[in-house]
Amino acid sequence: MIKFCNSCGATVTHRIPEGDSLIRAVCDQCGTIHYQNPKIVVGCVPVLGERILLCKRAIEPRYGLWTLPAGFMENNESASQGAAREALEEANARVEIEDLYTVYSLPNISQVYMLFRAKLLHEDVSPGLESLEVKLVREEEIPWDQLAFTMVRKTLEHFLEDRRRGVFVPRFGDILPPLR
Amino acid sequence: MIKFCNSCGATVTHRIPEGDSLIRAVCDQCGTIHYQNPKIVVGCVPVLGERILLCKRAIEPRYGLWTLPAGFMENNESASQGAAREALEEANARVEIEDLYTVYSLPNISQVYMLFRAKLLHEDVSPGLESLEVKLVREEEIPWDQLAFTMVRKTLEHFLEDRRRGVFVPRFGDILPPLR
Repeated sequence: MIKFCNSCGATVTHRIPEGDSLIRAVCDQCGTIHYQNPKIVVGCVPVLGERILLCKRAIEPRYGLWTLPAGFMENNESASQGAAREALEEANARVEIEDLYTVYSLPNISQVYMLFRAKLLHEDVSPGLESLEVKLVREEEIPWDQLAFTMVRKTLEHFLEDRRRGVFVPRFGDILPPLR
Repeated sequence: MIKFCNSCGATVTHRIPEGDSLIRAVCDQCGTIHYQNPKIVVGCVPVLGERILLCKRAIEPRYGLWTLPAGFMENNESASQGAAREALEEANARVEIEDLYTVYSLPNISQVYMLFRAKLLHEDVSPGLESLEVKLVREEEIPWDQLAFTMVRKTLEHFLEDRRRGVFVPRFGDILPPLR
């Protein structure tokens, strides 16, 4: 929740600016409007032969569960550069990014996931700061009941299905929280 | 440039937080780290029969040039919802969003464009607040020398090519500024 203007330090007011339709944090002292927008999470499915690289999370949320290497995209990088950077940071894995494969919106947490297919360029991966453990798994070794996120499960399911068919088809969609 | 903490109002320092690798605006008073991340622009190619909906910009940048309806994605909406909302806001156009079609990273301005194919559901479109004029154009009527953005030109080129072939293939890539 924005309380102060990060440009001049004055207290902001929360109102709909002229010509807008949503409530924003507006600084009446210097005129800055503080927009808040969804964040992009970029990652990849690193593949070496038959095996896929997974990382066991050393951070919350979902500490101790398995994920594909992914993280928040940074300013001044492209989505594919960000995806390669995350593989390096989380698993000391050098990858060659291929096509964009899955794009999921998670409107309830204002995030968009963008996951690429990727070639893992070497076998000697190791955990980065945000991973407890990393491993290369065959299809039958995937820990389906210990995956961290729905987007990981969906991406792996599509990937395995497409690999069997021999044709990779990009997917996009929305992931909403389960109904209570 | 962030100078003050928007949570407690204290002056921030710019340094690399522990466990991070990039300089962030850090509040030493309340501990908040102010991350800055790329923004997503969502839009669509609204099609009615042979014609495509274009909008003449009433705002900077590129005032007076032609674009596809698109704008910043908002929190708590999905990418496809945002794309439909922008068509309504900019051209009073109701659309049915189809597949994700082009995804472009613009790292120099820290934006990612996500454009969908869409069915325009009616003919009576009209300019919203951010448009001077809107029109439905056939291929030969596209104002190629008056398009606002590279991503618009690329998306229209791919769309027309794919329509001729009868197969729409999603594209992704990076758009960098011209070399000087």
